Amino acid sequence: MKFSKMHGLGNDFVVVKESSVPEDVFTLAIKVCDRNFGIGADGLVYILPSNKADFMMRIFNSDGTEAEQCGNAVRCVAKYIYDYKLKESTDISIETKAGIQHVVITAEDNKAVAVRVNMGPPILNGLQVPTVFDETLVKEKEIEVNGQILAFTAVSMGNPHAVIFVDKVEDALVKELGPIIEKHSYFPKKINVEFVEVINSKEVKMYVWERGVGETLACGTGACATGVAAALTGRTDSQVTVHLKGGDLIIEWDQDKDVVFMTGPATEVFTGTSFL
Amino acid sequence: MKFSKMHGLGNDFVVVKESSVPEDVFTLAIKVCDRNFGIGADGLVYILPSNKADFMMRIFNSDGTEAEQCGNAVRCVAKYIYDYKLKESTDISIETKAGIQHVVITAEDNKAVAVRVNMGPPILNGLQVPTVFDETLVKEKEIEVNGQILAFTAVSMGNPHAVIFVDKVEDALVKELGPIIEKHSYFPKKINVEFVEVINSKEVKMYVWERGVGETLACGTGACATGVAAALTGRTDSQVTVHLKGGDLIIEWDQDKDVVFMTGPATEVFTGTSFL
Repeated sequence: MKFSKMHGLGNDFVVVKESSVPEDVFTLAIKVCDRNFGIGADGLVYILPSNKADFMMRIFNSDGTEAEQCGNAVRCVAKYIYDYKLKESTDISIETKAGIQHVVITAEDNKAVAVRVNMGPPILNGLQVPTVFDETLVKEKEIEVNGQILAFTAVSMGNPHAVIFVDKVEDALVKELGPIIEKHSYFPKKINVEFVEVINSKEVKMYVWERGVGETLACGTGACATGVAAALTGRTDSQVTVHLKGGDLIIEWDQDKDVVFMTGPATEVFTGTSFL
Repeated sequence: MKFSKMHGLGNDFVVVKESSVPEDVFTLAIKVCDRNFGIGADGLVYILPSNKADFMMRIFNSDGTEAEQCGNAVRCVAKYIYDYKLKESTDISIETKAGIQHVVITAEDNKAVAVRVNMGPPILNGLQVPTVFDETLVKEKEIEVNGQILAFTAVSMGNPHAVIFVDKVEDALVKELGPIIEKHSYFPKKINVEFVEVINSKEVKMYVWERGVGETLACGTGACATGVAAALTGRTDSQVTVHLKGGDLIIEWDQDKDVVFMTGPATEVFTGTSFL
């Protein structure tokens, strides 16, 4: 199997272009993603033909399940399509299980260096996020965790987020409070938790605790939720650079169109031929 | 950079053949070994010319330090030399920082499937292992850990090991007792800890806690120390198969020659070209 190993902010993928996915793709994904015995990745991504968009992508996680969508993987797929000239345009449409993504490439020396993805509208209605609050907006809502009172803003970007602004983001905060907030009774489907420090009106620093996963280097939808919450609470402009452990994302909440645009890097680390 | 990604029992390496190591090898090793942003490996291994042996190998760990030796890496290097026909013989000599290794290949369909390595003599003298005991043999010595009394046998294979036979090896045992024994006052340079369950006179099951690392899938010198300790205490024959989490090793303690032979697999997973 010929493949390209890529990452978006450290969220890494084995990317292959095929006419169809193999029958044993679920077990193959587990083997391929194993970091000691396989190639090693968070997911195995297929670039496939589509009759609705330029290409279709399917993502298989390291546990063999199929993901609906992943912002970091979409950027990698877009870079692959552009760099390998599968389509000679900076505007690319990619069909995913969650709908069609329209992305725009920023290129340097004929290689994609950044990819802008339309992440769709933020969902702010309390019951739709979902939280237990029947309110149009769950903003700066108090929550008691380990005896401390914090305030969160709830935003769904297809998956639910609780954004918490703090004076200083610290690892201890994420590891101690993240798992408690994730499972708090306020959130019927659990929640992803972002701890955010505002640097100025154009920049924030974010650490993330992902639902069912734990702390990760970067979370695209979490950065989007953070950009929305930061603008909503008047802390930043509607375009903000989010500094994550894995790198930077630029989040732009276009309130007229009611969509969030996310711009971020994608990197090809190596190409290979696997004996798996 | 063209490379081959190989592993010996899950202990994995990026293997490259070059005429010399690059100047920035220490920082390169850190970048290459990073599992999200790089190629991902436990070490970066160079196959180099030698004027003392068929080839020289140098291993750079994921933290940028240079390792003296590594049994799992030697097998990968031997397989690379054999499979890519750098030497057309099943007997190969490899210069390492710890001396010259003479290895013997077992081949199937012109590919190496197992490699036998002479691991040198076991060191049993208490002070030389080192332990605090001025005894020629530290065998079944009692040690109190967390209120439990266990018995260990001390063996050095260039690095120190405490082999502890238990009725049943369990993860909890390794994670709870491993770090405490590692730093016990009996061991002036700390110690690697093997928990070993005897299956019969030809087979044992071993879990390992590596000094400064934690639990690992496999430890070649630990398997050797286990084979020696098992034979020394009359639990097994002098040749024994050691089942590790990462796979099997055959350990043979040749008491006439006073050396330990270790036979194990090496696997090539993929070849690649890196943009790092």
